[in-house]
Amino acid sequence: MKIAIFGYGNLGRGVEAAMRQNPDVDLIGAFTRRDPATVKTRTGLPVYPAADILKFKDQIDVLILCGGSATDLPELTPALAKDFCLVDSFDTHAKIPTHFANVDAAAKENGTLCLISAGWDPGMFSLARVYAQAILPEGQDYTFWGRGVSQGHSDAIRRIPGVLDARQYTVPVPEAMEAVERGENPELTTRDKHTRECFVVAAPDADKAAIEQAIVTMPNYFADYNTTVTFITAEEMARDHAGLPHGGRVIRNGRTGIHGLSRNTISYSLRLDSNPEFTASALVAFARAVYRMKQRGRTGCLTVLDVAPADMSQLSPEELRAHML
Amino acid sequence: MKIAIFGYGNLGRGVEAAMRQNPDVDLIGAFTRRDPATVKTRTGLPVYPAADILKFKDQIDVLILCGGSATDLPELTPALAKDFCLVDSFDTHAKIPTHFANVDAAAKENGTLCLISAGWDPGMFSLARVYAQAILPEGQDYTFWGRGVSQGHSDAIRRIPGVLDARQYTVPVPEAMEAVERGENPELTTRDKHTRECFVVAAPDADKAAIEQAIVTMPNYFADYNTTVTFITAEEMARDHAGLPHGGRVIRNGRTGIHGLSRNTISYSLRLDSNPEFTASALVAFARAVYRMKQRGRTGCLTVLDVAPADMSQLSPEELRAHML
Repeated sequence: MKIAIFGYGNLGRGVEAAMRQNPDVDLIGAFTRRDPATVKTRTGLPVYPAADILKFKDQIDVLILCGGSATDLPELTPALAKDFCLVDSFDTHAKIPTHFANVDAAAKENGTLCLISAGWDPGMFSLARVYAQAILPEGQDYTFWGRGVSQGHSDAIRRIPGVLDARQYTVPVPEAMEAVERGENPELTTRDKHTRECFVVAAPDADKAAIEQAIVTMPNYFADYNTTVTFITAEEMARDHAGLPHGGRVIRNGRTGIHGLSRNTISYSLRLDSNPEFTASALVAFARAVYRMKQRGRTGCLTVLDVAPADMSQLSPEELRAHML
Repeated sequence: MKIAIFGYGNLGRGVEAAMRQNPDVDLIGAFTRRDPATVKTRTGLPVYPAADILKFKDQIDVLILCGGSATDLPELTPALAKDFCLVDSFDTHAKIPTHFANVDAAAKENGTLCLISAGWDPGMFSLARVYAQAILPEGQDYTFWGRGVSQGHSDAIRRIPGVLDARQYTVPVPEAMEAVERGENPELTTRDKHTRECFVVAAPDADKAAIEQAIVTMPNYFADYNTTVTFITAEEMARDHAGLPHGGRVIRNGRTGIHGLSRNTISYSLRLDSNPEFTASALVAFARAVYRMKQRGRTGCLTVLDVAPADMSQLSPEELRAHML
């Protein structure tokens, strides 16, 4: 099975790193819209100009798109779906139905198979929600995120005048998460569920009080949360906040029994040292499923909910039944 | 979608109870090898003699087998697979490949679709293991069970002379589970992972010391564990140990990154007030998937690993993408 990556940032490097753990997969190259001469890969992976990708059509079984959801993927995925089976990690939840429709049309018209919105949320957390709701239809879902770096929130802080660098951690409120884990179904506001911790490097002459005020009152991003702002040096940022950890937990509490008296809790949690490496590893496993499902004649657009987990595994169905079931 | 249950014990009653949460499913009756006149269902569900089941062939889309794995299912599932699409909860892990082969042959020959070994382990825990291994190929799995009632171990105690009743709880060792949850990959023996708590009602004239000795030295069941035995009265048994709670946790710790330096933990846990009710709820969701996959022409034997989660949900694919992804 031959794959290629489109975009060589954190996610693309994660796919490259995952290759040593997926011996059935050959990564043939990275496509970039930058000048390939300026892109140095970690493993000597060849880099090609994005404009040349159609020349590689017959050499790529599944293309893994490693671009961003905000501007790249809404255009890129439907365009590439005309010529390639592919996987993307489109994560703007509210726009998934539109993205799905666009990719599905392109894929069906051209006989390709595409899977969108793989990763962990959307992705593994979506699977956790759907399985839990299918088995416990009478109940309530909770999703907590963190402790981890939100790149969108970090970027929002960086756009404030006087900010040189910023890192924002989303942190679940322990009391809220523990109450849900105990089987309670509390009503939780946005503020009840998560806090936001901001670490900011300010310019020497910046008005720190103004920066802090701009952060904690920022609508959508911070205004609805209890937010703390800590000013640090560039050295502290580099030393203590270089990683991109993340994670979270999906919990469903549901009742069973003739009178609904039995309480059941299903909990799925992730703790990730590297958000992009984990997402990349998930993309590779879903790319394997796309490859196998395409060989069985499937075309159109899929999500993670349409994939039988056996298709994601390096093990054969016989091995899975003998050792993993 | 019309289903029926074969066997009306704890599991069958659980399916009956789940009907009020699954409005798209009609339960048409329970088949029993007992005298139907002696079986009183909780919701007025009709009871029919097992011998008459072929008369209902055209009225049942999916049959849910609610018998035991030790003696019932190895014979029953392949026999009924000739005439019915079905789901069972066969849980003897070591014999799954044989059971699969027998059911697959019967189903393929007769054009039915059967899913074996649904429930939580095998079942949801198998899914957790396979997803986690597919995404983190370099890592280690741990499965902990409990705190919960093991019916097999309870039965083993009841067979000891002088024992009137018994309930055995399997209990994960907290220190071991916490170490794994922290991301460590300890080497754990059987004894390190679980303890066994036994509550026993002894006959008035029984030799309690001999019973305790017989329990803690019993090969396979108790000899390899730290086991505690507590003698209680029949009244205490009825008051404190009437339920069948269970649960457990599947954890995988895996490395990612070019040098394998990032540590990632995936954890899936269940805490169930009622093991049979939860298992029954899972059987109903997998029966829905069998029904849909059969309509698309699939035949043969499946396991939970072959099912796309969207097929288990009451929600449409559009609703799932809009609200659950």
